[in-house]
Amino acid sequence: MPRNDILLRDLDADGILRLTLNDVARRNALSEAMLTELGDAIAEAGNNASVRVIVLAANGPAFCAGHDLKEMTAGRAGADGGSAYFTKVMGLCSGVMMSVVHCPKPVIAEVAGVATAAGCQLVASCDLAIAADTARFSTPGVHIGLFCSTPMVALSRSVTGKHAMEMLLTGDMVEAARAEEIGLVNRVTAPSTLTDTCMELARKIASKSSMTLAVGKRGFYAQREMTLPDAYAYASAVMVENMLARDAEEGIGAFIEKRQPQWQDA
Amino acid sequence: MPRNDILLRDLDADGILRLTLNDVARRNALSEAMLTELGDAIAEAGNNASVRVIVLAANGPAFCAGHDLKEMTAGRAGADGGSAYFTKVMGLCSGVMMSVVHCPKPVIAEVAGVATAAGCQLVASCDLAIAADTARFSTPGVHIGLFCSTPMVALSRSVTGKHAMEMLLTGDMVEAARAEEIGLVNRVTAPSTLTDTCMELARKIASKSSMTLAVGKRGFYAQREMTLPDAYAYASAVMVENMLARDAEEGIGAFIEKRQPQWQDA
Amino acid sequence: MPRNDILLRDLDADGILRLTLNDVARRNALSEAMLTELGDAIAEAGNNASVRVIVLAANGPAFCAGHDLKEMTAGRAGADGGSAYFTKVMGLCSGVMMSVVHCPKPVIAEVAGVATAAGCQLVASCDLAIAADTARFSTPGVHIGLFCSTPMVALSRSVTGKHAMEMLLTGDMVEAARAEEIGLVNRVTAPSTLTDTCMELARKIASKSSMTLAVGKRGFYAQREMTLPDAYAYASAVMVENMLARDAEEGIGAFIEKRQPQWQDA
Repeated sequence: MPRNDILLRDLDADGILRLTLNDVARRNALSEAMLTELGDAIAEAGNNASVRVIVLAANGPAFCAGHDLKEMTAGRAGADGGSAYFTKVMGLCSGVMMSVVHCPKPVIAEVAGVATAAGCQLVASCDLAIAADTARFSTPGVHIGLFCSTPMVALSRSVTGKHAMEMLLTGDMVEAARAEEIGLVNRVTAPSTLTDTCMELARKIASKSSMTLAVGKRGFYAQREMTLPDAYAYASAVMVENMLARDAEEGIGAFIEKRQPQWQDA
Repeated sequence: MPRNDILLRDLDADGILRLTLNDVARRNALSEAMLTELGDAIAEAGNNASVRVIVLAANGPAFCAGHDLKEMTAGRAGADGGSAYFTKVMGLCSGVMMSVVHCPKPVIAEVAGVATAAGCQLVASCDLAIAADTARFSTPGVHIGLFCSTPMVALSRSVTGKHAMEMLLTGDMVEAARAEEIGLVNRVTAPSTLTDTCMELARKIASKSSMTLAVGKRGFYAQREMTLPDAYAYASAVMVENMLARDAEEGIGAFIEKRQPQWQDA
Repeated sequence: MPRNDILLRDLDADGILRLTLNDVARRNALSEAMLTELGDAIAEAGNNASVRVIVLAANGPAFCAGHDLKEMTAGRAGADGGSAYFTKVMGLCSGVMMSVVHCPKPVIAEVAGVATAAGCQLVASCDLAIAADTARFSTPGVHIGLFCSTPMVALSRSVTGKHAMEMLLTGDMVEAARAEEIGLVNRVTAPSTLTDTCMELARKIASKSSMTLAVGKRGFYAQREMTLPDAYAYASAVMVENMLARDAEEGIGAFIEKRQPQWQDA
């Protein structure tokens, strides 16, 4: 894949796939092309046994600027004023965001720069996020008459109500330290150690059984939309199935025998 | 409206409606009269295009003391022991709280004093809240044998489980700084700058398109009760409709052309 | 009951039942025996009018190490590879966790040591939790190929998404101070003052009307799974019923007359 691709894909020997947004000139906007690339890369990673963890990073000063407003504006040219085009792009974008949530591989956002609108949504949609202290976050749609309604789906599932509302109603930039306080990111580091911190976290997770991670991640998002009794019925069944799997037998055996486990897919 | 009204209404040129609880002698209790006034004012503001943002403030040392216990006690005199009366008051109060949530205009609580029981619920129900460091919060019904069950609806949607439970089971006062930590309020200021801080925040939000704010606020509370796929289907449709609206076209155009947008309703 | 029991039960004159996990040699693992003891003790406490508040503590360096892995491994011996046995244990464990949530008496976790896997779930399931600064928390199933899927039900209802995911995907230990920041525990104290802090909190809550606490606790967990209008309809009905109860009449009367209330069941 040539170096000037808008999405770089690098898979290392530890099973860590780095996806790097690389459309620097457009501040890594989620253009149709970028959404398609990103959706494809995540779908592919989900089916690729060599991929154990995904790190989503970005080149340039912006992590991701959200939708490509020029492309959206051009979409108005249709006879319907853009209705069909907007529907297509919104469906594509929401699909990519849900694919991050539904991907069986854990996804870590590595955020060095500014993540705005659907770019902020992307960070909120990842399982984990590490930010450099240079990172900033906002949902600024309100400034341009277009409320960040789809970003809010992910944001309001990441942080508490008043914190989400403040970002959505004001469009203000939130500094990295504040993003950590409200739980939008897990941790903040110096810019110089951001990639190392993310890769260390990714390697730690990649050392686990992929089967176990997939079972756990799917279960996390499934059970939290259930009532408590339903969630326990579901999670108990998941535990039983997980106990019967070879990696749990091996993992528990290794633990009792104080040795390193050998995962089936490692 | 005479100055001795229990709810003062001041609408300024920026479209900011200050509603000030002004029944100082009763610590701004949510008497039937106050609930009626407040419900009317919010309903009216929702329908008044001149109102862009609501600030809910209070005169006197108490922001709001919750239900009027003397009035409630008097209500026991009925042949049914008060059952019909309590049902009426609880329905009235819950209706006012939901009207804050459903009002198309953003509502900011400006809290200088003590907000207890349904007064704390009122703060939790607002979209945003700013507190002076003199503000304090509690759900003290447990002290008097009457659990703060309706306040808990709003509280448990504002802060995490154990934080809500601590307030509800102990009835203890929570200082402003702690309220900020747990997300019950967005920010704490010195008492001398409280009103300025709130009005500045209100003006910032009032400068946005009212259509956009209404679409976004309604969507926020609607989508967060849905499953993730339903939330995305809903929010995507909202985004498309929002894109087709005149204010989004104007706002995006202004952004691309680096000029100030002119909202339809401004 | 002899002192070498795996679960100690001490009920004091204030109505505080201390349940102390006392299987120190097994790090207070949730063996079948322990789960049965704990389930029985909580069910009994729920029906015992002398019990007003439950404090759940532990002897030894571990608060609770989660499931008993040796017992689980022995369970594999069945012809079905352990399927029926695991189903039984998971059902038993989930039942105990839900019994903590559904018990009409408030339950406070007093955590001095390490709480892992289902031990961490137990803390997350309690209404309140106080930790010594020596306490640590983790959901380490991912290390042994067995994702902490049932612990995650309680954890993801206690803390925000990325905080829960970090614990679940990494299995890392979380220090007490961090557990407080993310809301997994209410407060952290010095080890020397842990029991006093918990007992003081328990006594404060035990001084309230048991009827009121039961109504409130049940309502808390019921309403937070409802939509906002349903939650208000439900909570309003609860408030009316609570108002009509003798303890609310007494409590409100005492408040107005500035005297101590006398609860029916005290």
